[in-house]
Amino acid sequence: MRHSGRAADQLRAVTLETSVNRYAEGSCLITAGNTKVLVTATIEENVPPWLRNKGKGWVTAEYGMLPRATHTRGRREAAAGKQSGRTQEIQRLIGRSLRAVVDLAALGERQITLDCDVIQADGGTRTASITGAWVALRLATNGLLASGALKTDPILGQVAAISCGVHDSAAEADSNFVLTDAGDIVEIQATGEKRGFSRAEFESLFALADKGIGELFAMQRAAIS
Amino acid sequence: MRHSGRAADQLRAVTLETSVNRYAEGSCLITAGNTKVLVTATIEENVPPWLRNKGKGWVTAEYGMLPRATHTRGRREAAAGKQSGRTQEIQRLIGRSLRAVVDLAALGERQITLDCDVIQADGGTRTASITGAWVALRLATNGLLASGALKTDPILGQVAAISCGVHDSAAEADSNFVLTDAGDIVEIQATGEKRGFSRAEFESLFALADKGIGELFAMQRAAIS
Amino acid sequence: MRHSGRAADQLRAVTLETSVNRYAEGSCLITAGNTKVLVTATIEENVPPWLRNKGKGWVTAEYGMLPRATHTRGRREAAAGKQSGRTQEIQRLIGRSLRAVVDLAALGERQITLDCDVIQADGGTRTASITGAWVALRLATNGLLASGALKTDPILGQVAAISCGVHDSAAEADSNFVLTDAGDIVEIQATGEKRGFSRAEFESLFALADKGIGELFAMQRAAIS
Amino acid sequence: MRHSGRAADQLRAVTLETSVNRYAEGSCLITAGNTKVLVTATIEENVPPWLRNKGKGWVTAEYGMLPRATHTRGRREAAAGKQSGRTQEIQRLIGRSLRAVVDLAALGERQITLDCDVIQADGGTRTASITGAWVALRLATNGLLASGALKTDPILGQVAAISCGVHDSAAEADSNFVLTDAGDIVEIQATGEKRGFSRAEFESLFALADKGIGELFAMQRAAIS
Amino acid sequence: MRHSGRAADQLRAVTLETSVNRYAEGSCLITAGNTKVLVTATIEENVPPWLRNKGKGWVTAEYGMLPRATHTRGRREAAAGKQSGRTQEIQRLIGRSLRAVVDLAALGERQITLDCDVIQADGGTRTASITGAWVALRLATNGLLASGALKTDPILGQVAAISCGVHDSAAEADSNFVLTDAGDIVEIQATGEKRGFSRAEFESLFALADKGIGELFAMQRAAIS
Amino acid sequence: MRHSGRAADQLRAVTLETSVNRYAEGSCLITAGNTKVLVTATIEENVPPWLRNKGKGWVTAEYGMLPRATHTRGRREAAAGKQSGRTQEIQRLIGRSLRAVVDLAALGERQITLDCDVIQADGGTRTASITGAWVALRLATNGLLASGALKTDPILGQVAAISCGVHDSAAEADSNFVLTDAGDIVEIQATGEKRGFSRAEFESLFALADKGIGELFAMQRAAIS
Repeated sequence: MRHSGRAADQLRAVTLETSVNRYAEGSCLITAGNTKVLVTATIEENVPPWLRNKGKGWVTAEYGMLPRATHTRGRREAAAGKQSGRTQEIQRLIGRSLRAVVDLAALGERQITLDCDVIQADGGTRTASITGAWVALRLATNGLLASGALKTDPILGQVAAISCGVHDSAAEADSNFVLTDAGDIVEIQATGEKRGFSRAEFESLFALADKGIGELFAMQRAAIS
Repeated sequence: MRHSGRAADQLRAVTLETSVNRYAEGSCLITAGNTKVLVTATIEENVPPWLRNKGKGWVTAEYGMLPRATHTRGRREAAAGKQSGRTQEIQRLIGRSLRAVVDLAALGERQITLDCDVIQADGGTRTASITGAWVALRLATNGLLASGALKTDPILGQVAAISCGVHDSAAEADSNFVLTDAGDIVEIQATGEKRGFSRAEFESLFALADKGIGELFAMQRAAIS
Repeated sequence: MRHSGRAADQLRAVTLETSVNRYAEGSCLITAGNTKVLVTATIEENVPPWLRNKGKGWVTAEYGMLPRATHTRGRREAAAGKQSGRTQEIQRLIGRSLRAVVDLAALGERQITLDCDVIQADGGTRTASITGAWVALRLATNGLLASGALKTDPILGQVAAISCGVHDSAAEADSNFVLTDAGDIVEIQATGEKRGFSRAEFESLFALADKGIGELFAMQRAAIS
Repeated sequence: MRHSGRAADQLRAVTLETSVNRYAEGSCLITAGNTKVLVTATIEENVPPWLRNKGKGWVTAEYGMLPRATHTRGRREAAAGKQSGRTQEIQRLIGRSLRAVVDLAALGERQITLDCDVIQADGGTRTASITGAWVALRLATNGLLASGALKTDPILGQVAAISCGVHDSAAEADSNFVLTDAGDIVEIQATGEKRGFSRAEFESLFALADKGIGELFAMQRAAIS
Repeated sequence: MRHSGRAADQLRAVTLETSVNRYAEGSCLITAGNTKVLVTATIEENVPPWLRNKGKGWVTAEYGMLPRATHTRGRREAAAGKQSGRTQEIQRLIGRSLRAVVDLAALGERQITLDCDVIQADGGTRTASITGAWVALRLATNGLLASGALKTDPILGQVAAISCGVHDSAAEADSNFVLTDAGDIVEIQATGEKRGFSRAEFESLFALADKGIGELFAMQRAAIS
Repeated sequence: MRHSGRAADQLRAVTLETSVNRYAEGSCLITAGNTKVLVTATIEENVPPWLRNKGKGWVTAEYGMLPRATHTRGRREAAAGKQSGRTQEIQRLIGRSLRAVVDLAALGERQITLDCDVIQADGGTRTASITGAWVALRLATNGLLASGALKTDPILGQVAAISCGVHDSAAEADSNFVLTDAGDIVEIQATGEKRGFSRAEFESLFALADKGIGELFAMQRAAIS
């Protein structure tokens, strides 16, 4: 059982280290508390079959967790022979979140894959992955602009995400918020673990997330400059 | 590409037909517009290995879609050799939603599986599944109470769900709301397809859902009486 | 363990309801006693790779059973990650049976897939599938003729099937007969469960099937008119 | 495409060589024309989980074909990651056929597995497998009787099988007949490839099979003596 | 647990029988003690996708073991749904060993697949496979030269292999040596089962292998003449 | 295509960083040139089913490579649904190498799993994994000794490994040597890529490895002190 919780109003310590991989077109190691996610961006000059010859590119994500990223060792998904439902759900979320700030037509017929591998997990790995993946994506796209492969910037803005939860005697809720720097909502996921939670609790989680994500946008900008 | 959208303020026509399967401990065919989902509840007198000897039961769900439930034929998942990420995500949501209104200790060491099979799909299949599954679960549990296998009712309340969306020139959002009849939130999922959406749009989707789910609670009560 | 038996000389009550699916090119819900199979026909304007550019079409079938179609819940094949040998054997039989009455060259380079999904099972699901699939196939082909996509009818005749068995103290046999309305044999499968059966028993099963299939041909004609 | 046909009235040359494997409890190499199948019988002192503690044994079969058993190389099923529907259908038939002449209660709580591996294929591999598997089963059971592990012979009689077909301008049919030496039918499978066949054709195939299987019974008795 | 051991200084009895398969372009049954491996060579006039249009051919191998090749029955890999790590390791070794004596450019854009199927196993199956596969490969290539499909012989020399081990109180080592008739090393694999072994022990295993492989080269030449 | 080569006589820069994972019982990040492998040791208080109740423990390894560890992105094995033959071969080698210096009886009925995940790859990942895994294993075992769970040290000595190759116009060879600090050979793998190599070349690779591994033993001792 993995959980995503942050109860405090205080954003836990976040760092974003770039260019941590010698080969990838963009990379970022994001640390949030004891959670560490290594993100690499790979540019490939072709698109998935269903998108061919449509003049558009694609941005997608894959997610994995090292077996001993957590307190007890989890089974290696490659050995199990399939990705869990949880893994697939997370990588779909990451890809969707990034595409919300990319002009796929401006990207041209190429694909950027964000590999998010959790080195150590202490909650919030999916939202840390989104925040770090934006940095790796931004760096990879900068390379395309610098080399002249792209004339127009396909990145429309920033996207970042945060997980927060309520865990008291009256309620237990976990939530993930993905927002853009233009103030738009990309994704909200709020779940009452075991039982439901109230409308007021939801509002206070939203406020907490809004504040925290504002800080993450500043860190992203610092990381890429 | 399947989508879940209902833009209108008007709940589309919903019917709940019970006892549609000769063998299942509970069953319900829910129709919502052109969407039809057949739900069966199966009671088994044992629990998954990880829950054994803890004095608690389990409620879980599986979801499937007939290949020609949609406009174009989809590949049969059994033939593909695995359930898609979307399928797993949906069945996890259904199970989680139902467990929010079940006292698992009161259920005793038994498992109830809700099979939600989409006969025809026109959006909102996951939320229709939740609404119909509660009816099948209620009927199966009634059987346990009637036979004396259960002394106390493990069902703590009603849960129902609705999908609604905004699809205009300024925004495109899909959302699923799962609420209890006690007014609590069990799950919120809101996604900006292609681009984000505003806080105001989110609020109007929430209000729409709140109203619709109230009508669904009344239908559920009528169906089981 | 599922079994297919009908011992009586009396054909059990059969109904054929058409156009039960909003999207499929042809569809039929066949009920035979407590067995219910939903069949949809899907037309696709291409053929499998091994048949390309040969000026011929293809007719194939897939078969599935909802988990709670039977007394006890069966494992969902999509969750198990593969179709059982039984499922594959049945869908091969259905496809072969239908092709026996189709002129594949006259069909042109298109494929018709018959999805046979068992909603409830009380024996004879494979033969009910064949009988119902012919109706869905006939309706789908009628559409091609009506639209002018086909000039010549590729359907050469009717095919229907019946399961019958002997279960007495001296023998135990199950059999499936697939016959055409021209009086030809398409397929005979006769199995002595646990021990063999006599030549005389085989002959009486054959006579029983012959009579019953004659009645099914009349029902098929009524259903499509 | 593999086919099973033998049109002639003449049984093709069959030989049965026993004790061809150093380790197996029973073994037989059956040659029928250019078809060669190596069968081994393995005795294990336990039964499948679903049969435990019922005082009965089990007889089962597995079937495989070496990649270059045929004119063109077929893909190795272990590399493909699954057994084809055809393979599963065949091994189910072999197991069922053998069980028809075994008293499973007399066998005791043990399992005998017949592995039928096709070294070279020129039609009729499934029926050759059955005929050879009976010999291997008989030899393995003789060992149990000789060692005193069994007091009563669980083998009730002989079973053998033959494939025959009609391939002329008016019809095309393939059939497999599995009969016991007591004159009972264990299994009949008759298929009209491409189109149906007449009742008269079926009768002549049956007569042909009946005669051929009589010769196979004599060969089986010679092989084990 | 399978083991590969030969401790003695004496090469165990080896025979090479050719043309044992009616369809394959080359074939060889190698017997070494109680180990028997059937090898077939299949020529296909195309190469794997990654090698297309490079003017080169490919030589590859697949390896399998019949379930009852050993003292106790092993699970059929096709039924298990995957090839074990051991199987994959062995077939990679066989392919690599053969390619060491083939000029792939001279072979032209065609692929030769060596299927090595172990009929009976008593150690040393991987090295017996290599030795026998060279014979099958040589025969298949002779066919291409005889038909004029090849003008130049792509086979540069002979390759053969031997397994030998030390199993005494002080050490336990297994080794496989693959050498060419030009005196070159193609592959050395030496493993200390349970604990390491000394340099001197390694040297004596090497000497033993060198002598034995010399004898195998002579047998290979005799087999193809 | 990944390759393992180091041609120079000079050991490339190696560092061993310990305690890099917050949860694992032992961990080590080994850097060798641009190759980086993160190793964690997990202790579990049970053994695999086949080893139960034998009074012995087990040491095993798993190996994985992040998709963008290399110049071009490799497919994620979890997404592919299976571990490649190469991966399985490597993890078998790592486990075998470590067990050569462990007294499994002294370890007691517990299992230690070494997860070796390649963060960045520039050759020699399997040998770096072995060298780093010994450090993680040593640290995990120290914990068992410190806590009193173990009275006797089950680690019999050090094991380390190196990859070296010859890549000149006359030969091309890659080799992996695994040696113990007692001077014993645990494993030798030497492969002539494309063509064989001479005995003299083998000897010089061995000498090179012997020297390099001596330096690695010193680094291991420094790392754990």
